[in-house]
Amino acid sequence: MSETYDQLCEHFREIAVLGSIGALLDWDARCMLPSGGAGYRSDQQAYLSNLLHQKRTDPRVGDWLADVVDSDLTADPRSDSATVIREAKRIYDKQVKLPADLVEALTRAENDGQHAWVEARKNDDFATFLPFLETTFKLKREQADAIGFDDCRYDALLDDFEPDEKTSRVRETLEALRKDLVPLLDAIQGSSEVPDASLLTRKYPVDSQTQFGTRAATAIGFEFDRGRLDVTHHPFCTEAGPDDCRITTRYDENFFNMAFFGILHEAGHGIYDQGLRKDYYGLGPGSYLSLGIHESQSRMWENQVGRGRPFWEHWYGAAQQTFSEALGEVAFDDFYFAINRVEPSLIRVEADELTYNLHIIIRFELEQEMLDGEIKAADLPDAWNAKYQQYLGITPPNNADGVMQDVHWSAGLVGYFPTYSLGNLYAAQFFAKADDELGGLAEMFRRGEYLPLKDWVGEKIHRVGRSCSAAELVQEVTGEPLNHQYLVDQLRAKLGPLYKI
Amino acid sequence: MSETYDQLCEHFREIAVLGSIGALLDWDARCMLPSGGAGYRSDQQAYLSNLLHQKRTDPRVGDWLADVVDSDLTADPRSDSATVIREAKRIYDKQVKLPADLVEALTRAENDGQHAWVEARKNDDFATFLPFLETTFKLKREQADAIGFDDCRYDALLDDFEPDEKTSRVRETLEALRKDLVPLLDAIQGSSEVPDASLLTRKYPVDSQTQFGTRAATAIGFEFDRGRLDVTHHPFCTEAGPDDCRITTRYDENFFNMAFFGILHEAGHGIYDQGLRKDYYGLGPGSYLSLGIHESQSRMWENQVGRGRPFWEHWYGAAQQTFSEALGEVAFDDFYFAINRVEPSLIRVEADELTYNLHIIIRFELEQEMLDGEIKAADLPDAWNAKYQQYLGITPPNNADGVMQDVHWSAGLVGYFPTYSLGNLYAAQFFAKADDELGGLAEMFRRGEYLPLKDWVGEKIHRVGRSCSAAELVQEVTGEPLNHQYLVDQLRAKLGPLYKI
Repeated sequence: MSETYDQLCEHFREIAVLGSIGALLDWDARCMLPSGGAGYRSDQQAYLSNLLHQKRTDPRVGDWLADVVDSDLTADPRSDSATVIREAKRIYDKQVKLPADLVEALTRAENDGQHAWVEARKNDDFATFLPFLETTFKLKREQADAIGFDDCRYDALLDDFEPDEKTSRVRETLEALRKDLVPLLDAIQGSSEVPDASLLTRKYPVDSQTQFGTRAATAIGFEFDRGRLDVTHHPFCTEAGPDDCRITTRYDENFFNMAFFGILHEAGHGIYDQGLRKDYYGLGPGSYLSLGIHESQSRMWENQVGRGRPFWEHWYGAAQQTFSEALGEVAFDDFYFAINRVEPSLIRVEADELTYNLHIIIRFELEQEMLDGEIKAADLPDAWNAKYQQYLGITPPNNADGVMQDVHWSAGLVGYFPTYSLGNLYAAQFFAKADDELGGLAEMFRRGEYLPLKDWVGEKIHRVGRSCSAAELVQEVTGEPLNHQYLVDQLRAKLGPLYKI
Repeated sequence: MSETYDQLCEHFREIAVLGSIGALLDWDARCMLPSGGAGYRSDQQAYLSNLLHQKRTDPRVGDWLADVVDSDLTADPRSDSATVIREAKRIYDKQVKLPADLVEALTRAENDGQHAWVEARKNDDFATFLPFLETTFKLKREQADAIGFDDCRYDALLDDFEPDEKTSRVRETLEALRKDLVPLLDAIQGSSEVPDASLLTRKYPVDSQTQFGTRAATAIGFEFDRGRLDVTHHPFCTEAGPDDCRITTRYDENFFNMAFFGILHEAGHGIYDQGLRKDYYGLGPGSYLSLGIHESQSRMWENQVGRGRPFWEHWYGAAQQTFSEALGEVAFDDFYFAINRVEPSLIRVEADELTYNLHIIIRFELEQEMLDGEIKAADLPDAWNAKYQQYLGITPPNNADGVMQDVHWSAGLVGYFPTYSLGNLYAAQFFAKADDELGGLAEMFRRGEYLPLKDWVGEKIHRVGRSCSAAELVQEVTGEPLNHQYLVDQLRAKLGPLYKI
C-alpha cells in the first residue's frame, strides 16, 4: 500500500517537473523570446503538453488510485496522504473522461482562437472572430457533458478553476454583491466630490517605477532570491519551480497605477506561491487551493493593503522623492483620493475596485447563457452592450473594447471569470479576520510592517494547500461562510469619506 | 525503407526538441534563474538528460539504422539522407557503447567536480580538488576504452568535439604552430614599442557598452529578431530553437575589451547557428560541423575582422562618440595598438590572439599525458607551472590562476581544448580564402560592409552542416589541407608593423 502510494507520489512529482519546465517555456515566450522563435516554441510546448497528458492518463495511475483511495491513507481527509490521493484522483478522473479527439480539438481551438482573437480585436472585426467563438463554446459544452455535472454545465467547467464550487452558490453571492454595489456606485456618481486623476498621468520614469515597485514588493514579502520581476504585455505570475516564482508587469511612463498596483497584485500571487509547502511541490498539499483563493492573495496586497490610507502614510514620502516631478507638490489626500477613484469604464483590467466586480458579473452571466444555449455567439455583442448599459451605465463604442476585450473565451477559459470576484470577496473577508486576530493592521502598515500579515496568511492559507475546499477554508479561517458584506463594508468605509456620501 | 528513414528523422527531431528545451533551461540557469532556484533546476535538467539518453539509446534506432545504413539513401555520402544517417549512427553507436553505470558515474562526477572546482578555485585549494580530478580522468579513461580507438585514448574523446579528427594530426599542427609562434613572441617581447593599454581600462559605462556592442553585432549580421544578448558570468552562445539563438557577455565598466570582443566572438558563434539549415534542425545537415569549425566562426569575427585596422577605420569614430570620456582624445593608432597588444599572461580567457594558442597547447599536452598515465593528477600543478615557464616565460603564483583556472576538466570536458586553437587556424585559412575570392575585404570593412563575408561563410560553411568532416571542409573551401601558416602570416602582418619587428 505504502509502496503504491510512493509510486503515485513519484509519478506526480515527475508531472510537476514537466509542468514546471512548461511554465518556464511559457514565461520565456512572454518575456524573453525573440519574435522569430515563436513557431518552434509552440512545437516545444506541444511536445511537453502531450507528454504531460500521457503521464496524467497513464493507466497505472488508475491502478494505484484503486489501491489507495479507500485505505488508511485517506482516513483523515485533511492528512497529507488523503490530499495527495484526492487531488491525483481529481486530475486523473477528469483527464480520462475526456476523449482524446476532444482534447485535441480543444487544444487546436484554443490556439486558433487566440490567434484569431488577436487579429479580430486589432481590426474590431467580430464577424471573423465569431466562428472561433462558436467552435470554442460548442467544444466547452462537449467537455462539460463528458465530465458530467449534477446541476448545470457551468459546474463542470467552474470546477477546473474553483474546485468543488457550485454555480448556484456563486450566482447567489455575486447577485447579492451586485445589489449592494449598484446603489453605492449611484451614490458615488451623484457626489460632487471628484478626484484629480490627472496627477496619476504625469511623467513617471520607467526606471523609477521599477525601483519603487521592487521596493514595495520586497517590503510586503516577495522574496527576490526565489523569484524575479520582468516586463511583459499581459502581466502574470508563474512558478518555474518551488523556489523560482516569476512575476511580471508592464509600464506606462505616463500612468502610475498600472505598474505599481500591478506589481503589488502579482507579488501577492507570488507570495502565495512562495508560501506553498515545498516538500509537496506539485502534489495536493503543496498546490494552490483554487484560482479564487489565489486571486484573494493578489487582491489583498493590491487593494486592502496597497490602496489603503495606512499603506500610503508610510510610502507616500518615498513616492514623492522617487517621482518628484510628478508628485513633489501633490498633497497626500489628493494622491490618495486619485488612486481610489471610482468610475464606470469600458475595460475590465483597468476598472476600479468597485466596478471591477460588475464587469465580472456581466461575463459570468453571459457565459452561462452561452453554455445553456439561451443566447447564441452571434448575439453576444448586443447582449454584452445591453448589460454594460444596465450595470455600468455605459455602452461600448465598438466590439474591440466590448465583447472582444478579454482573451479568456478565445483561449477556452470558460468558467474562469467568477474566480476574480470570488477572490475580491475572499480577500475582504480574510483581511477583516486578520485585522481582528492580529489587532491593528493599520498601525503596522503605518510603520511599514507587513510580516505579521504575510505570516498570518502563510499559516492560515498558503500552507493549507489543497487539503480542503475554498468554502471550507473560508469557514475555517473566518468562522463563517463566504459573506459578500465584508467587501461592501470595506468599500463603503473607504469610499464614503472620500466621496462624502 | 523510406518509411524507416522518416521514423528515424522524426525520432531525432524529437530529440532536438528535448535538446532545445534543455538548452533554454541551461541559458536561463546562467542568465536569469534566482539563486534559490538552482536546486530544482538541477532536477529539471537531470530529468531531461535522462529522457534524452533514453531516446538516444532507444533500441528502435538500432533497428532503423540497420535497415538504412547500407541503402540507396547513403549512396552519396554528401546527400542529406546520408548525413542524417551517418550522424544518427555516430550518436547511437557511441551511446550504446557506454555502460549505464559509467554514464551515471560520469554525470555525477561532472556535477560534483564542477561544484568542487568552484570552491577549490575560490580558496586556491588544489588538495581538495585533487580527488575529483582523479575520478574524472579515471572515468574518462574508461569512457575512451568503452568507445574504443585505433591509435590513442585521446582520439576517442576528441571525437566528441571534433568528429573524425585524429590526435596525431592535431599534435603535429599545434607543434608546428608553437614553433612559429615562440620566435614571434620573443621578437615582440624584445621590441621597444609598447602600447598604452591603460586607455582600455578607463571608464566605459555599461549601458554604452551594451549599445555599442549590439550595434556591432547587428552590423556583422547577428539577427536580433532570431536571437538575444544577455549578461552572464561565463559567456556562451546557445540555441534554444532554430530561430532562437542566445548570446551572452559580461561587462567590466573599466575594461573595454571584455564585453566588446566577447560580443563579437559570441555573435560569430551565433551567426553560424543562425546560418544552419532550419529544415534539418537537430539532424546532421542542420548541425554545426565541429567545435573547431564553430570556434573558427567566432574567432574570425572577433580577430580577423574585429581586431583588424579596416574594421576600426569604420568604427572608431562611433567608439569615440560613444565613449567620449575614455576615447575622445585618443589617437586611432594608439587605440588600434592597444587592442592588439601581445603579452604573456596567466589566464587563457584573457590572453591575446598570439599567446592564446600557447595556453591551449599546454592543456592539450597535459591532458594527453594524464590519459596515458604519464603523469598523475597530483603532479599536475608542477607540470602546469613548468610548461607555463617554458612556453610563456611566466610561473603562476598559485593554483587558482594556474592549473585550476578552467572549468573544463572538472566538468569532464577532456579533449575539448585543442578545438579552440583549431578554430583559430581554420578562421585564418578561411578568411584568407574569402579575401581572395571576394576581393578586398579590407575595403568593404572600411565601408562597414560585412554581408558579403557573412554570405560567403554562410554558403561555404554554415549550410554544409555535418555533410563532411572538418578536414574535408577545409580542403573543399580553401583547396588545401589545414595549414597553420595562414594564422602565423596574419599575425606577423598585423603585429610586425605595430611592434616594428
